[in-house]
Amino acid sequence: MPTSVKIFDTTLRDGTQGEGISLSVEDKIKIARKLDELGVHYIEGGWPGSNSKDIEFFDRVRDMKFTNAKITAFGSTRRKNSNAEDDINLNRLVESGAQVATIFGKSWDFHVHTAIQTSLEENLSMIYDSVRYLKSKGLEVIYDAEHFFDGYKNNAEYALQTIQKAQDAGADWIVLCDTNGGSLPSEISAIVTAVKQHVTTAVGIHAHNDCELGVANSLAAVQAGAGQVQGTINGYGERCGNANLSSIIPNLQLKLKYDVISDEQLRSLTQVSRYISEIANTHMPVNQPYVGNAAFAHKGGIHVSAILKDASTYEHIIPELVGNKQRVLVSELAGQSNVLVKAQELNLDFNNEHQKTKEIIEKIKDLEHQGYQFEGADASLELLLREAFEGLEEIFTLESFKMLVEKTANHAVVSEAIVKVKVHGETIYTAAEGNGPVNALDNALRKALVQYYPDIQQIHLSDYKVRVLDEKDATAGKVRVLMETTDFNNSWNTLGVSSNIIEASWYALVDSLRYALLGRTRVEPANKEQQERLGLVNH
Amino acid sequence: MPTSVKIFDTTLRDGTQGEGISLSVEDKIKIARKLDELGVHYIEGGWPGSNSKDIEFFDRVRDMKFTNAKITAFGSTRRKNSNAEDDINLNRLVESGAQVATIFGKSWDFHVHTAIQTSLEENLSMIYDSVRYLKSKGLEVIYDAEHFFDGYKNNAEYALQTIQKAQDAGADWIVLCDTNGGSLPSEISAIVTAVKQHVTTAVGIHAHNDCELGVANSLAAVQAGAGQVQGTINGYGERCGNANLSSIIPNLQLKLKYDVISDEQLRSLTQVSRYISEIANTHMPVNQPYVGNAAFAHKGGIHVSAILKDASTYEHIIPELVGNKQRVLVSELAGQSNVLVKAQELNLDFNNEHQKTKEIIEKIKDLEHQGYQFEGADASLELLLREAFEGLEEIFTLESFKMLVEKTANHAVVSEAIVKVKVHGETIYTAAEGNGPVNALDNALRKALVQYYPDIQQIHLSDYKVRVLDEKDATAGKVRVLMETTDFNNSWNTLGVSSNIIEASWYALVDSLRYALLGRTRVEPANKEQQERLGLVNH
Repeated sequence: MPTSVKIFDTTLRDGTQGEGISLSVEDKIKIARKLDELGVHYIEGGWPGSNSKDIEFFDRVRDMKFTNAKITAFGSTRRKNSNAEDDINLNRLVESGAQVATIFGKSWDFHVHTAIQTSLEENLSMIYDSVRYLKSKGLEVIYDAEHFFDGYKNNAEYALQTIQKAQDAGADWIVLCDTNGGSLPSEISAIVTAVKQHVTTAVGIHAHNDCELGVANSLAAVQAGAGQVQGTINGYGERCGNANLSSIIPNLQLKLKYDVISDEQLRSLTQVSRYISEIANTHMPVNQPYVGNAAFAHKGGIHVSAILKDASTYEHIIPELVGNKQRVLVSELAGQSNVLVKAQELNLDFNNEHQKTKEIIEKIKDLEHQGYQFEGADASLELLLREAFEGLEEIFTLESFKMLVEKTANHAVVSEAIVKVKVHGETIYTAAEGNGPVNALDNALRKALVQYYPDIQQIHLSDYKVRVLDEKDATAGKVRVLMETTDFNNSWNTLGVSSNIIEASWYALVDSLRYALLGRTRVEPANKEQQERLGLVNH
Repeated sequence: MPTSVKIFDTTLRDGTQGEGISLSVEDKIKIARKLDELGVHYIEGGWPGSNSKDIEFFDRVRDMKFTNAKITAFGSTRRKNSNAEDDINLNRLVESGAQVATIFGKSWDFHVHTAIQTSLEENLSMIYDSVRYLKSKGLEVIYDAEHFFDGYKNNAEYALQTIQKAQDAGADWIVLCDTNGGSLPSEISAIVTAVKQHVTTAVGIHAHNDCELGVANSLAAVQAGAGQVQGTINGYGERCGNANLSSIIPNLQLKLKYDVISDEQLRSLTQVSRYISEIANTHMPVNQPYVGNAAFAHKGGIHVSAILKDASTYEHIIPELVGNKQRVLVSELAGQSNVLVKAQELNLDFNNEHQKTKEIIEKIKDLEHQGYQFEGADASLELLLREAFEGLEEIFTLESFKMLVEKTANHAVVSEAIVKVKVHGETIYTAAEGNGPVNALDNALRKALVQYYPDIQQIHLSDYKVRVLDEKDATAGKVRVLMETTDFNNSWNTLGVSSNIIEASWYALVDSLRYALLGRTRVEPANKEQQERLGLVNH
């Protein structure tokens, strides 16, 4: 029986099959980096045979360094009645430059007849030829036996033949998939045990959550001898999602004592799960096990008085082991560890005894209570901390803004902003158009600043996300805006919260520019001629 | 081994310990009626010893008729070093008028020492006395052994003594609680098996979801001989929630073939779960197993082409068994077969040879190229298809809108919208404020429509997401707005794409209202008096 378990993350491939999940290439690269930090062993980046976005992803990661993870590309076995060597899909896997190829094939006789409509014999050849071809190209090959459990229940002999073929062709892993998510832990346990008696190749499990048993089925497979678990962060995936790695990893490591990732990596689990939720622009359930904001939150009076005596009375693990926090009543302590980490990163003297530290923690708690969430907005957090500990020069302050959007039938919409700000003590009035209201505000504000800081022309808004905060009366109707800004070398994230999307955007925009100006040198305002050249005549 | 399983619902008691869940007495009564229709066997209404709201609940249900469920009141064993007869908490249970009393006591020696701080012997007496007193009052008594599994792991002998005492005192059920949610199915299975060898009283399971194993643990207990499952609809509850009955009931009935509720009642499961989610004012995850909106939703092109051949290729049960339905999502990852399925769902004559079909497919491709993504916006897709195939009555058309947002330093931001639309041929001018620009537009547009369609006042915007489309030059700077709108029974999703967030929101809003008006009957415009009552005097 294995004592360690390898984690195969398919957030970037199967995860994007989930409703409402759509990731740009840039999003995928950010997530891959985070997954690598978390310490997963395989990152499935996409299906290069299915779309050009995934091809671009593999092109871009080809020369990137990953510390822990191998990148794997996904595809299917060759088409029926053809050669593996000529198969476009298989060749895309080779061309992707990924070290590892993961291919799926059919194990359920019903699917062979119904879905791909070929003979059982030809299906076996498709598996054998495909694995062998990829092995001949020097790749590590993971064979995903799609619908293995349904296939085994229907025709065990044939299901076993399919994985035997993958083994004969030299597959490095045989992963048993409960593709429809309909199996129970007792079935998974019995079938994995039977498989382990038939094949010598290392076995993995790929479970789905259709019966709310994705995590349990993954654990049952490991307990029966599987050495690899495939899943997604936060359980993203088609229908009810894939097995949730954010729960599986701590269950394996803390409860079943398998060697999975390092203790330090495990302590980043909450932060990684929340970061990926922000990037994917999903609503993370507060009650998500281990990593949710309420996972260790106590409301009941009896529970609270008991945990004050001893936390283990109502907590199954120490929350810090997964980077989460206990929360009692309305006190919002979440994020404090992030604050600490950030403060250390900035070399601030962040000591719990200092008045400044107490004040900034109070302030952050209050902002979090209002709906701010600094997980995805490092730059806004840095500004807050620098302001509290070092003081920040107040470069500009708002006097007022007006924003007008006008549309008539069959005409393009028009957005205009008027901004009145004090920059270095001087009141400046600017107006600008934009392709949207936030862009108009951005343009108007920049106009006021660019004469002092000409190089802010180079930065641009690269992402913008809005989330309605629907939790409770306190935040009803509020929106959180998350903004990403980029210059040639860096990008940074800021946020704003308000019941008004324009105001929330304004706050995020102001932080974005304040951050951009950190450490930049002010120049003397341009003379009239230069102003004209810069289009600043109307301030 | 039992062949039937009794369902004990604690949505109204343990469920309300969940963060963000707060139910009025009226809410609780509505939910109790729904639970009775669903066919649960016990409804735990609250803790009359802990608050007056729960006392009121029991007063109000006392004379109500329930067809399937018995109402039960919750409380604890008597206080240490006192008499059961004089215990206020126990007497509240008797006075509540509930047929069944559910009391919890300590099984974990650590808790006896730490939380209630008494002797192990006194704790046994507390259990015995309390159960016996309630039995003497003619009540059915369910004894909840709190922290039973943690207690058993720490001191099996003492844990067994505690439930032996409950049995000796005449308890009708002994329910083993995994209060902290930290146990694994393999542990639950072994411990329930051991308990069944020690007691003859019927045994139940009460699991929590802290390891994302609440459902699996409940099933493991039943498979080891438990005849009662306690849980909550949608898994509401403290921290990560209680075991989710919305998944447990179909798993027990459809997968493990236990007799739980009738087939007809099971077909109401989706509707009951969504109804309770509405009453509790929670955001129901789309990917919730069995009952979620995406539980049987298909996105991948390969999956979609297979389910067209046979739905069981990628569905573990027939969705209608739990009152849910198959949905096909249209997305970049899918081919046109997804549109075909949607058209079939709407009974449209969608034949590839028809000119209409070719046109609408071209149109959808074109919209997708612009950044539309219909997978999350069923209602917008339905409107497109209905318009192309059936024609849709043009109820209202935009003449113009103006939207103004104004902010001065230290003052609240103000949003105003002016809308000029033609409704049934009549030009209507309305203006409204809002807590944000989209809300202001929504209010202004609704004002124009509500006199013809008064019941659109009941619908409300329930979610709103914005995404910048940063993929390609063609869509640079564009934003996609996804909007969810809800009335009491349904919710629908619409979208809009534009380089201007306000315009994109407008498109999504217009689709949302067009969809809401499908099949609604126009009423004659209200007279002046009615208009004043409705606040429509300014059109």
